[in-house]
Amino acid sequence: MTQVQLAGTGMTTFGSHPDRTGRDMFADAGLAALEDAGVPAGDVDELFYGNFVGTLSEGQGHQGPLMAEALGTTVPSRRIESACASSGLAVHDAVRAIRSGESDVVVAGGMERMTNMGTAGATKGLASAADDLYEVRSGVTFPGAYALMARAYFDEYGGTHEDLAHIAVKNHDNALANDHAHLRQEITVADALDAPEIASPFTLYDACPISDGAAAIVLTTPEYAAEHDLEADVAITGAGHGGDTMALHDRQSLSKTPATRDAAVDAYDDAGIEPSDISVAEVHDCFTIAEVLALEGLGLYSHGEAIGAARRGETCRDGELPVNLSGGLKAKGHPVGATGAAQVAAIATLLDGTHPRADAVDDATVGVAQNAGGTVASATVHVLEVME
Amino acid sequence: MTQVQLAGTGMTTFGSHPDRTGRDMFADAGLAALEDAGVPAGDVDELFYGNFVGTLSEGQGHQGPLMAEALGTTVPSRRIESACASSGLAVHDAVRAIRSGESDVVVAGGMERMTNMGTAGATKGLASAADDLYEVRSGVTFPGAYALMARAYFDEYGGTHEDLAHIAVKNHDNALANDHAHLRQEITVADALDAPEIASPFTLYDACPISDGAAAIVLTTPEYAAEHDLEADVAITGAGHGGDTMALHDRQSLSKTPATRDAAVDAYDDAGIEPSDISVAEVHDCFTIAEVLALEGLGLYSHGEAIGAARRGETCRDGELPVNLSGGLKAKGHPVGATGAAQVAAIATLLDGTHPRADAVDDATVGVAQNAGGTVASATVHVLEVME
Repeated sequence: MTQVQLAGTGMTTFGSHPDRTGRDMFADAGLAALEDAGVPAGDVDELFYGNFVGTLSEGQGHQGPLMAEALGTTVPSRRIESACASSGLAVHDAVRAIRSGESDVVVAGGMERMTNMGTAGATKGLASAADDLYEVRSGVTFPGAYALMARAYFDEYGGTHEDLAHIAVKNHDNALANDHAHLRQEITVADALDAPEIASPFTLYDACPISDGAAAIVLTTPEYAAEHDLEADVAITGAGHGGDTMALHDRQSLSKTPATRDAAVDAYDDAGIEPSDISVAEVHDCFTIAEVLALEGLGLYSHGEAIGAARRGETCRDGELPVNLSGGLKAKGHPVGATGAAQVAAIATLLDGTHPRADAVDDATVGVAQNAGGTVASATVHVLEVME
Repeated sequence: MTQVQLAGTGMTTFGSHPDRTGRDMFADAGLAALEDAGVPAGDVDELFYGNFVGTLSEGQGHQGPLMAEALGTTVPSRRIESACASSGLAVHDAVRAIRSGESDVVVAGGMERMTNMGTAGATKGLASAADDLYEVRSGVTFPGAYALMARAYFDEYGGTHEDLAHIAVKNHDNALANDHAHLRQEITVADALDAPEIASPFTLYDACPISDGAAAIVLTTPEYAAEHDLEADVAITGAGHGGDTMALHDRQSLSKTPATRDAAVDAYDDAGIEPSDISVAEVHDCFTIAEVLALEGLGLYSHGEAIGAARRGETCRDGELPVNLSGGLKAKGHPVGATGAAQVAAIATLLDGTHPRADAVDDATVGVAQNAGGTVASATVHVLEVME
C-alpha cells in the first residue's frame, strides 16, 4: 500500500473574522500549506474539502470548485460534510485517494465561516448536526446534548465538574503559545467553576467558542516527495472512520462513543500500532466532556479513567500523554469545517518539531488526531508517524 | 484493480412529495436497492451519500449517519456535495472505496427535498450552486446562466430554439413509460416553442422541474457477488471526475464544458473504451442546451454537431444513440442530490434489460452516465458495461 506523506500544513488564525469570505480564508490556509510543502498548485491532482454550514452562513454551496479555484487550479474537488468531522473525513478520503494510486498530490482541508451568522444563527446552524425531527424540535442544543452525556458519565463512572474544569484550564494554557488560537487567555479552575452556567453541569468554560477559520494539509506519494526533494518527515500511517446513530436516544450508552472506538481500531490496525505507542493526541473537545469520551474511545484510557487525567496532570504539557497541545477546540477555536484538518496539522507539526508546543513532546514519534461529528454520530481517527 | 459490480438499484418516484422527509425517501430508495441486490444491510461497509440543500430545505445537516440509520446500519458514511453532481460524485468515490480494497459492499446514492421550499426557496437554494459573490448577487439564476450558454453556443456553432425543443419533446416522450418519472406528459415542438419564455432563448419546456426524490445503488466486489450468488451482470468499469471555474466569466468559452470532457477522458481511459463503443447515454439535461453540451463534452459528437441530434432523430429511442431514455432530468425530474445515482441506475437497468425502455437498446453492452454540478463547474462520468 502506498505510504501517505504529509508534506505541508497551513491554517489561518482561528477567531472572529466576520468580514472575511470563505474563499479568502481557505486560500490563505491552502496556499500556506502548498508553500510549506514546496508544491506548486499545478501539481495538485484533487481537493478534498470540508465545510458544514456554508449554504447557511454565506449562501454558498458547491464550494469544492470554488476552493480549488482559490488555490489557482480547476482540479476535481468535492465538499465532504459530516458536521464537525467534515475535514477529518476530507483527510480520510484524501488518504484513500493517494493509496488508491489515483492521485500523487492532494490537498485536504476545510473552512467555516460562522461569526457572521450571529450567535443565534450559528447555534441554529450547529443544531443541524443533530436529528432535526427527534432532537432539535424537542429543544436539544449541542451544549444540552453534551451536558446529558456528561451527566450520564458522572452517573456511570463518577467525576465532577471540577474534573472537567481542569481540562479547560489545561487547554487554555496550551493555547497561550499558539499564534493561531482564538482564545489566548489563561483561566483558573475557580474561573471555570464560577463562570455562568450554560447547561448543567457545564459553565461557559466547558464550551469551545464559535470561530471562523480554515486549515489545509498537502499529502503526496513517497515517490513524488522524493522526486521533488520535499521535506516530508511525517506520514499518515493510519486512517479510520466510524459511525453511530444520529440521535442520542437510540444509543445503548451516553457515556461511550463507539464511532470513535471503531475509527480508532481501524486506524491503529491500519498503522500497525497499539494505543500504548501514542505519545501525543489532538482530540475533539467541543465540550470538556468530549475530551474524556475521546480519550476513552481511543483506548488511551479505560472507561471511567480519563475524567481525572487532566486533574492528575497526565494529559498536561509535562504529563505522560499531552493532549490538545494546540489548545484544542476549547481554546484554539472550532471553525467547524476546518477543525479535523487543523488537528492533523497540529500533530504533524508537533512531531516534526515546528509547533510552538513541540518541546513538550521532543521524542514523540507517533501521534493521533480524533475528530467527531455531532454527538459523535461520526468520527475519524488518524495516526501520524515520524518516518526515518 | 478490483472490478466494481453493480448489484442493485432503487429509487423513489421523482415528483412533488413536500410532506415526505428526506430520511423517509432515502430509506425507500436504499432499501429497494439492497433488496434488488439481495444484500442485507448488515453487509454494507460504507455509505456514500449525495445531498445539496438539506440544511436549507429541512434544517438537517450531517445526513450521512442519518441515512445510514435509515438503512438499518451505523456504518461509516459521508455526505458528498458538489451541487447537482453530488450523487454522481458519491458513486465516483464509492467506486474508489471498492477498488481500494477497503470495502466489499457500499451503498451510493442521494436525496433531495425541494418542493417544500416553495419556488422562491428552491430557486434560492439552487442558486447557491453558482458563485454567490460574482454571479448570484448580480442577478444570475440558473435558467439565466444556461440561457447565456445557449446563446454563446448559437453564436459559435449555429442552432435554434427549435433544435432545443426537439430535445424536450424526446425526453418527455421517453418518460411516458417510466413509472418513476415526475412529468409523464407528451409535448410537441409547437408546445415547447409556444410556452412562456423563462430566459431567452428558453421557454418553460427547456427547463427541468423542481423535484423531490431519492436514488441508490449497491456496489460490491466480484468476490462478494460470487460468494453470495448475486445477479450482478453490470459493472462500473470507468469513473471520471472533472472541474472548472465556478463563475462563467472566468471561462474561455461558454459553449464548451471542460469538466465533462476531463471526466469523460478519465472514465474512458479507466474502462479502456472509446466514445464509439457507447450505445446508450444518460446525460445531465437540467436545461435542453445542457444535453447538447454534455454529448459534445463526452466526445459522442463533435462541437457544433449535437445541437441537431434530437431533431435528426439520432438520440431518439429508435436512433443510433438513444439519450436519456429515462426521460432525463427534463421529464424524469431533478431531485438534485439523487440525480447522479439515478442516472447510473438507469444505465444499469437499460443494460440488464429491466428498464421500461430497455427494448430500445437490446444489444447494448456499454453505456455512459454524465452528471454535472452548477454550470458544469464539476462533472462526473461513469462507464457501465455488461459483464459476460
